[in-house]
Amino acid sequence: MATWSKASLIVAAIFLLGSASVAHGRSRRFIRSYDEPCKEMTLYFHDIIYDFSNSTSNSTSAVVAKPTALLQSMNTSVFGTMVVFNDPMTEGKALPPSLEETTVRAQGLYFYNKKQSPADAWFAFSIVFNSTAHRGTLNLMGADLVSETTRDFSVVGGTGDFFMARGVASVCGDAVEGFTYFRLQMDIKLYECYV
Amino acid sequence: MATWSKASLIVAAIFLLGSASVAHGRSRRFIRSYDEPCKEMTLYFHDIIYDFSNSTSNSTSAVVAKPTALLQSMNTSVFGTMVVFNDPMTEGKALPPSLEETTVRAQGLYFYNKKQSPADAWFAFSIVFNSTAHRGTLNLMGADLVSETTRDFSVVGGTGDFFMARGVASVCGDAVEGFTYFRLQMDIKLYECYV
Amino acid sequence: MATWSKASLIVAAIFLLGSASVAHGRSRRFIRSYDEPCKEMTLYFHDIIYDFSNSTSNSTSAVVAKPTALLQSMNTSVFGTMVVFNDPMTEGKALPPSLEETTVRAQGLYFYNKKQSPADAWFAFSIVFNSTAHRGTLNLMGADLVSETTRDFSVVGGTGDFFMARGVASVCGDAVEGFTYFRLQMDIKLYECYV
Repeated sequence: MATWSKASLIVAAIFLLGSASVAHGRSRRFIRSYDEPCKEMTLYFHDIIYDFSNSTSNSTSAVVAKPTALLQSMNTSVFGTMVVFNDPMTEGKALPPSLEETTVRAQGLYFYNKKQSPADAWFAFSIVFNSTAHRGTLNLMGADLVSETTRDFSVVGGTGDFFMARGVASVCGDAVEGFTYFRLQMDIKLYECYV
Repeated sequence: MATWSKASLIVAAIFLLGSASVAHGRSRRFIRSYDEPCKEMTLYFHDIIYDFSNSTSNSTSAVVAKPTALLQSMNTSVFGTMVVFNDPMTEGKALPPSLEETTVRAQGLYFYNKKQSPADAWFAFSIVFNSTAHRGTLNLMGADLVSETTRDFSVVGGTGDFFMARGVASVCGDAVEGFTYFRLQMDIKLYECYV
Repeated sequence: MATWSKASLIVAAIFLLGSASVAHGRSRRFIRSYDEPCKEMTLYFHDIIYDFSNSTSNSTSAVVAKPTALLQSMNTSVFGTMVVFNDPMTEGKALPPSLEETTVRAQGLYFYNKKQSPADAWFAFSIVFNSTAHRGTLNLMGADLVSETTRDFSVVGGTGDFFMARGVASVCGDAVEGFTYFRLQMDIKLYECYV
């Protein structure tokens, strides 16, 4: 057994962790690696908020809940304000030509949870891909700690082309216009995925 | 080493990925396989909505939040309407004899996030099993893209008999009666689980 | 191959499942073990609720949504009541000196989903660590079935020091003062983590 070489172990690793698959109509390997991502992409998240902006024609998100008036008036705080969104996501920073028709969308909710401004937020959402390049969803959740330059969400699952994916999405505020628009840059790195 | 056979590798795979366990009071193996599910089940989700139906005696879910009246009136849209549910789940399609006492229940929330009808929804919930067959929970989240015949949620975790489970639940609308009742068929496939 | 010993297999297991890593600025191993946790900790979650308490100065959470008045009046139930929180978490049971400045915080939401009292709740949140011992987040979701002595949430992901973590958090009610304060004990066990 002294000759059982490291090379053989690596063969075993590939066999075990990256088994070739024709399930789900494709011949691909499932990769699990914590040292480098098996897939990376950068996407921009555009949020155009009804209720702050008062424009429903443009808006891609809406405030759906707030604490009672008393808390609002005492704190002049957004604590507890909850927003449901169906936001366009783009590969570049520019707003897409149509806000309601893009091949990548983020569907979910966020809410503010800090009395002081700027308020931290908490997100849970799906990124829905519907292009020739990708079909499927990634599901994410996590804390958006705005006082930190970048902060991370967990990618907790995926479907379709992202079947069983897991990873981390690093987020940073990229642009903001009062309470009516903001853009987040999301650097998504998957460490468990089909390639 | 030329004689190190594929059979040996398979032995290694079983040893590594399916280690026998007596943890959590049972002698079972943890399976991780992306080509076929380690566990499959089909369950029907019954949602009986208060606020649309105006009946509290029957309802197993309730609208808890909506955008302000303006957005509602301008769009005649359910965008942003959020529902909390504690819904019965059954193995067959029929409503259970008691809506509030079944051995499998879905506890969580969904909200609509599309201006156009029929509206996509977004779900996050636990399936709570309390029967002789299963005790424990599965935790799911994902986008319910109603324009697609089937769509997938991620099973992102589990507890009890479903300790550390992951997988995918394929969902399709199975019946709908206006805004007061709908039934979803959920085909749940776990790819990481104890068996 | 008859001499291919169990010891060699264990060497392979360590190689495959616990590969040494210097990614993310540290030399650590990723452990995946379903028989014993790779990390354990106990934390207490303190929730001080505005709207029931009517005190905004102290409160670390707030009711943000409820069903319409009719359902409330008919059921005298908290069904559907949704709370957003940014709660202190502590290693001991005592409230921290400052409710708004602790090194560990829980940021997220819960809502009640049972008509009968005591009501089950459903949680989704991040535990945010910002101390010399730990920096990063754990993301959790699950059903808080209050009729059971202990119940389990899933740890579905992590970031920073908890990069790619998964596990289970067992929860039990540890103290309650009407609707204005409660404390939960959370025994967190990770089965996939860096050590």
